[in-house]
Amino acid sequence: MREPDLSSAALIGIDWGSSSLRAFLIGGKGLVLATRTSTSGASTLKGEAAFEAALQEVAGDWTAARPALPILACGMVGSQHGWREVPYADCPIHVSELALRLAPPNGHGIRIVPGLLYAPQDMAPDVMRGEETQIAGALQANPALAEHACIVMPGTHSKWAGVQRGRIVAFATHMTGELYAVLRTHSVLGRLMAAPKEGSDVQAGSPAFRAGIDAARNRNAPGLTHQLFTARTLPLTGRMGGEESCDYLSGLLIGHEIEAGLAWRDSAGLTDAPLVLIGEPELCRRYRFALDCFGKRADPLLPNTAPAGLWSLAHKAGLLAGTESAT
Amino acid sequence: MREPDLSSAALIGIDWGSSSLRAFLIGGKGLVLATRTSTSGASTLKGEAAFEAALQEVAGDWTAARPALPILACGMVGSQHGWREVPYADCPIHVSELALRLAPPNGHGIRIVPGLLYAPQDMAPDVMRGEETQIAGALQANPALAEHACIVMPGTHSKWAGVQRGRIVAFATHMTGELYAVLRTHSVLGRLMAAPKEGSDVQAGSPAFRAGIDAARNRNAPGLTHQLFTARTLPLTGRMGGEESCDYLSGLLIGHEIEAGLAWRDSAGLTDAPLVLIGEPELCRRYRFALDCFGKRADPLLPNTAPAGLWSLAHKAGLLAGTESAT
Repeated sequence: MREPDLSSAALIGIDWGSSSLRAFLIGGKGLVLATRTSTSGASTLKGEAAFEAALQEVAGDWTAARPALPILACGMVGSQHGWREVPYADCPIHVSELALRLAPPNGHGIRIVPGLLYAPQDMAPDVMRGEETQIAGALQANPALAEHACIVMPGTHSKWAGVQRGRIVAFATHMTGELYAVLRTHSVLGRLMAAPKEGSDVQAGSPAFRAGIDAARNRNAPGLTHQLFTARTLPLTGRMGGEESCDYLSGLLIGHEIEAGLAWRDSAGLTDAPLVLIGEPELCRRYRFALDCFGKRADPLLPNTAPAGLWSLAHKAGLLAGTESAT
Repeated sequence: MREPDLSSAALIGIDWGSSSLRAFLIGGKGLVLATRTSTSGASTLKGEAAFEAALQEVAGDWTAARPALPILACGMVGSQHGWREVPYADCPIHVSELALRLAPPNGHGIRIVPGLLYAPQDMAPDVMRGEETQIAGALQANPALAEHACIVMPGTHSKWAGVQRGRIVAFATHMTGELYAVLRTHSVLGRLMAAPKEGSDVQAGSPAFRAGIDAARNRNAPGLTHQLFTARTLPLTGRMGGEESCDYLSGLLIGHEIEAGLAWRDSAGLTDAPLVLIGEPELCRRYRFALDCFGKRADPLLPNTAPAGLWSLAHKAGLLAGTESAT
C-alpha cells in the first residue's frame, strides 16, 4: 500500500464507535488520503491510557510526523464510558451549530463532536453519538438534502432522522440490529437456524427475507412479540429451511422498523421528505429492498459519511485554517 | 416431610418442560398427594438413558413401590429433542380428544400427551407442548370455562388460547419472557440495569412497570423496536433508576403482548370470552395488573393446572381403571 502524502493532510478524523474505530487522514479539501480501522472500540477500552494507546496504535505515525494536525473524533468516544464525557447537544439543532459545540482539546489535542439528545415533552428521550456527524457529512456531500430529508442509518441501533433547512429536527432509534444478533445468538430462535455462510449472511432479495417483510406488514398479525416465534415454528414444521429462517427473522425485524419508521416520518411532518440511506452498503441494500416492498424509494444510498462530516465540522470550526494552505 | 400414602395413588403425572420437570403423585379422585421438582428439563437431557435416569431420580421410589401405576407426561418431553417425538395433534380440538391421542407407553411405561399445531391458512403455524394439558386441567377444575374462555398462560413463551364448547379453537404464542431475559442478559439494555434483588425482581404495581405498560399502549409511539431503546435512554438521562428500568422493560414487553393479545382475541371471535390467567402466581399478578391498565379484568387466576389436566386425560383415557378402586 502506498504511503499517503502526509504533507497534504489537514485533519485526522476519527469515527470512534462502541466496537470499532476508523481513523481518516483527510486533505484540506476533504479528500480522504488514508483510512485505518481497528477493533479498539470505546466499549472495549477502560481508562485514559487505553484510549491514548489505541490512538497511538492507529495513528501514531501520523501524529509524530505532523504533531500540529488537528484531531476531531465523533461517536461513543464522547460517552460516559468513553475517553471523556461530552454533554449531549439538544436536538433540534442546525448542523453548523455542532461545529460551535465541539469539546475543546484534551491533553492529547483531541476534540470531540457532541452527541445529540432529543427529548420532546411527553416522550421518552432519545440519543445519538456519531450519527450527527454522518448527517453533517451527508449534507456536505449532497447540499440538496439539507432542505428536506428523512435519513435512515441502519445498524445495531438504527437511526431515523429528520432534516429541515439544515437542521436536525427529530430522530428515533430502533434496536433492530442488536435484536437480530441477540435473538439469533442467545434465544431459542437460533437453535433451528443454520450456521451463516461467510459474507452471505442475509440476502436482501431472498423469498424468506421478503416473507419476513410481508409478515411485518400484515396488520392482522398479532404483534412482534408473537411474530418472532414464527421464526421458530416455520422451520420447526418444515415450512422453511434453517438458513432461510435467518433471512426471515431479518426481514421481520427490518419490516417492523420500517413500518414504524414510516409512521414516525409522517408524524414528524416529513411525509414527503426523500428517504436517504447511509451506512454499510450491503445493509443499505437490504433496507432499500425492504423499503421497495413498502412502495417507498430510498435514494441516494450513501456509504459512511463520517469523514465528510468530520472534515465539514472541523472546517466550520476554523480548525483547518493553519493547514489548508499546505494542500 | 411426611411420606405420601402410596397405596392411594392412581397416577404419576409429569409436567416435563424444557428447563424443569415436575412430578406429581396423584390419587384416584385427582388429589395431588406429593409433588417433586427437578432441573432435569428436556432441553438439558440427551438420549434415552438420560431421560430414564431423570425419571428414576425423581420418581424411582414411587415406581418401585407401585410398578403398575400409570405414568402420563406432557410438555417438551414429547418434542423432537425430548425422550420421544410425539406428533402434534391439530387445533381446533376438543380437550377430550387429547385423551384419545396419547402416545402409547414406551419401554418404561410412559405415555405422553401430544402437543398442538395450529396452522390456519395464510398464517404462520403455531405450536404448544404442555399448555394443552394445563388447559384441560383448567376446564376440569372450572367447568364453566369450557363454554367460552380466553386463557392466558404467561411465561418464557406466553400462550393465548381460545376455548369454545370444550374445544381449543385457536392459540398464539408470544416470546415475551424470553425477550425480557435475553435483552436483559445479553443486550445493551442490561448494562444500565441494577442487579435484581432475590425474589423481588420485577414489581407488578411499581410506577416504572406502569410506565412501561402506558408506553406500550401509546399508539403514537414508533413501535417496539424503537421503544426497547427507551429502556436505555431513560436511565442514561437520569429519568429512571437502574432498578426501575427492569420493571419498565417488563411492563413494555407485557404491555405489547397484551395489546396484541386483546386484538387477537377480538379477531378470533372471542371478544366477550372471560380472560383467565394460568401460571406462576407472581407472574400472573403482574399480568392481571397489566390487564387492569387496559381496562380488562382477568378472573380467575389459576396456579399450575397441569396435574389436574394429566389426571383428567388419564381418567378419560381409561388409564385409572385398575387403580381407582384402591382409593
